[in-house]
Amino acid sequence: MNRQDILYSPSGDLGVITAISTPSGMGAIAVIRLSGEGSIALTDKVFQSLSGRKLAELKPNSALFGKIIRDNEVLDEVVVTVFHAPHSFTGEETVEISCHGSVYIQQKIVELLLAEGARLAQAGEFTRRAFQNGKFDLSQAEAVADLIASSSRASHRVAMNQMRGGFAHKLTQLRDRLLQFVSLIELELDFSEEDVEFANREQLYELTENIELEISKLANSFQLGNAIKHGIPVAIIGETNVGKSTLLNLLLNEEKAIVSDIHGTTRDVIEDTVNIGGVTFRFIDTAGIRNTTDTIESLGIERTFQKIEQASIVLWMIDLTTSDREIETLAQSIVPKLDEKQVILLFNKADLFSDEQLAEKSKLLSQLQAERLFISAKKHRNTNKLVEVLLKVAEIPSIGENDVIVTNLRHYEALVKALEAIHRVKDGLNMGITSDFVSQDIRECMFYLGEITGQISTDEVLGNIFSKFCIGK
Amino acid sequence: MNRQDILYSPSGDLGVITAISTPSGMGAIAVIRLSGEGSIALTDKVFQSLSGRKLAELKPNSALFGKIIRDNEVLDEVVVTVFHAPHSFTGEETVEISCHGSVYIQQKIVELLLAEGARLAQAGEFTRRAFQNGKFDLSQAEAVADLIASSSRASHRVAMNQMRGGFAHKLTQLRDRLLQFVSLIELELDFSEEDVEFANREQLYELTENIELEISKLANSFQLGNAIKHGIPVAIIGETNVGKSTLLNLLLNEEKAIVSDIHGTTRDVIEDTVNIGGVTFRFIDTAGIRNTTDTIESLGIERTFQKIEQASIVLWMIDLTTSDREIETLAQSIVPKLDEKQVILLFNKADLFSDEQLAEKSKLLSQLQAERLFISAKKHRNTNKLVEVLLKVAEIPSIGENDVIVTNLRHYEALVKALEAIHRVKDGLNMGITSDFVSQDIRECMFYLGEITGQISTDEVLGNIFSKFCIGK
Repeated sequence: MNRQDILYSPSGDLGVITAISTPSGMGAIAVIRLSGEGSIALTDKVFQSLSGRKLAELKPNSALFGKIIRDNEVLDEVVVTVFHAPHSFTGEETVEISCHGSVYIQQKIVELLLAEGARLAQAGEFTRRAFQNGKFDLSQAEAVADLIASSSRASHRVAMNQMRGGFAHKLTQLRDRLLQFVSLIELELDFSEEDVEFANREQLYELTENIELEISKLANSFQLGNAIKHGIPVAIIGETNVGKSTLLNLLLNEEKAIVSDIHGTTRDVIEDTVNIGGVTFRFIDTAGIRNTTDTIESLGIERTFQKIEQASIVLWMIDLTTSDREIETLAQSIVPKLDEKQVILLFNKADLFSDEQLAEKSKLLSQLQAERLFISAKKHRNTNKLVEVLLKVAEIPSIGENDVIVTNLRHYEALVKALEAIHRVKDGLNMGITSDFVSQDIRECMFYLGEITGQISTDEVLGNIFSKFCIGK
Repeated sequence: MNRQDILYSPSGDLGVITAISTPSGMGAIAVIRLSGEGSIALTDKVFQSLSGRKLAELKPNSALFGKIIRDNEVLDEVVVTVFHAPHSFTGEETVEISCHGSVYIQQKIVELLLAEGARLAQAGEFTRRAFQNGKFDLSQAEAVADLIASSSRASHRVAMNQMRGGFAHKLTQLRDRLLQFVSLIELELDFSEEDVEFANREQLYELTENIELEISKLANSFQLGNAIKHGIPVAIIGETNVGKSTLLNLLLNEEKAIVSDIHGTTRDVIEDTVNIGGVTFRFIDTAGIRNTTDTIESLGIERTFQKIEQASIVLWMIDLTTSDREIETLAQSIVPKLDEKQVILLFNKADLFSDEQLAEKSKLLSQLQAERLFISAKKHRNTNKLVEVLLKVAEIPSIGENDVIVTNLRHYEALVKALEAIHRVKDGLNMGITSDFVSQDIRECMFYLGEITGQISTDEVLGNIFSKFCIGK
């Protein structure tokens, strides 16, 4: 790896880009966006206002009604808004064409703009230009994509915090202070024969502790961030007929939850993402275990182990009409796998038992640290409690407007590496090792911090990040 | 039916309406629209610009960047554009909020606006308000929906012509002239005992002929209009294994046609709409006929008859390796049903025969007036000709920018009724019947013309028309 700081310089291609920026498909209106110097002049070639006024004469941030003309024929009646550099999303001259939402019209207008010399924007290219023009740092740019994908209150808030500055500002400050120290240390190296000390080692040590604290806090927030962004993984385990569908329907009935299907990476596993009380849960389910009195089907138990491994919450559904012996047999295999997992035991068909019988049943699996809930899915008894228990077990803290949470794997990995480097700096200072080694570790820490904010980035890294955006953003 | 003119008066509810106007789903950005007096003040309650400037202070047609605030928390960063009455699509005060295209954000902003007193717009309510505020007549309003749904050059052009004034202007003029005459005739009735004649009968007769000509032209354009809007129905008939899929793939290969599936009204019939050379064809297909030497499966032939009935073009695919006798057997049933249909005989597997043999085969079904084409689907021989033949047979005239074509069933039905009424006026004048009957028929003709332009409309009719729009338009 080349450790040298590579500051990204915009590529030569700064022409006018265009794309449909609204969701694909038919709607009342759609917005086609152009960005880059010359966007307004280019749009003027195909636009005709009622008064004959050109877009070039328009004040910035103002809109004009008119027609898009193709081959002397009206393609659509539109409202065009112009933005002048640097006061636009991208920081460049920008035009937004608000047209009728016909798929045909949207396509034809874009084709017309391409024919006039615009280029189709690549995925994320508008946001990339905004980053390159200093409208925001890299982690903020990445938050734009997260914001667009946000589907719950929590994921929205985390993305919004990040887009509005988030942790990048703090990291930049810490990095700047490291830069001061490393410059002084490297100055010492020039005078190495004179044994001078420009950098105050005590202050430096204090700084490393400060940085360690900050970075640890951020890195530790990743687990929560990941849960917020992708949903808290909940494995539903149990025998074949105590299924996910019953449970999800329960939750749907109680909470009007939003359910969406995600085809998991594991073959034949479908994950349902459900938004409950502002928290996203990701339910992992397979066919279940076939348990015939004493023998447990090995394929089923194997799948159950996999599910447990992927989850942070395990929802173990038990049919109370199953014999205690069968339950305990199953428990022998499963319980050892439940270490470090939050477990909810969901005893179903409780309506078939008397209170005394249930009191007896509640001693089942007493060796297991778990939340216990007796329900009747059929009679809707106690099912509303399930939501409460899930939210309690999930332990998602309420996220304040200024809470900083890392949701991005790229950021997390850079933070972990920065943390390792700062540990080496601290150890080095403790052991009094020579300045050149300390300096190298500080540089490494700075490198990783800079990667997050985009102060250090390669074309490849940027390409990677922005290609995950949708076209039009 | 109540023949009295019911002029639509806007309902009392003129509050602020709001809806997401861009296509549903996730995109880079989305636009939420508000319309009605107070839209700007309402938006100001949840909007905060960087400078503290309010939207109310903004010049019309200008945009301002800022934040949408909910519970002291930033919900999104947005660009808001304001339009003042009457210079907006609806003719009312209008606000457009351009937000990030997250489904969550779109919903939450709308919820916030509803909480501040806006009402969710009904389907088509923005366009309905535009109509009620005199921005355009009813047929133009209906063209907005057609424009949004347009998917080919032809359907786009027809909808655009209609939206830009189309035939409604001419109908209004004709109706106004009828009104002059009917007023004079009704004045005569007041002086009935004096036998005066205020209305010049010759001029009136001339007008009725003029109207008859105009309305006939429009009514006759409906067949073409319908073909343009819904596609020209093409029945593909033939034996079981000479299928639609082969044919559609051919067209796809030759033309990069856009294919979409429409589930037809007939059970188990799927219609494929294909855009070829700017013309939309709607292919009607069922499983096909099973023909075993001399007996034809009755279910198959029944289905084939149904297909032929629905079509204006019949594409009869014949496998040349089938015996001549089988083909002629099939023809005995089918040919009588082909009157008034455009027929294309598509002989497949021509590559297996010599030119002499094909010359002989071309005498097959010589009793039938049809286009004949020898192809080899497998070897792609002559398949490019199919597109040519289809376009030739379809006889869609090229539509000029000022051509007026009726595509709307409601308009067509009103035109037919107006035509009947004007015929009665003409007959009455010819037979010299009394003025009160003539006056009644003129009023009826005026009623139907007024229904098209919306000069006469009931709340029910309007509700019916606009409910077919999407929400947000």
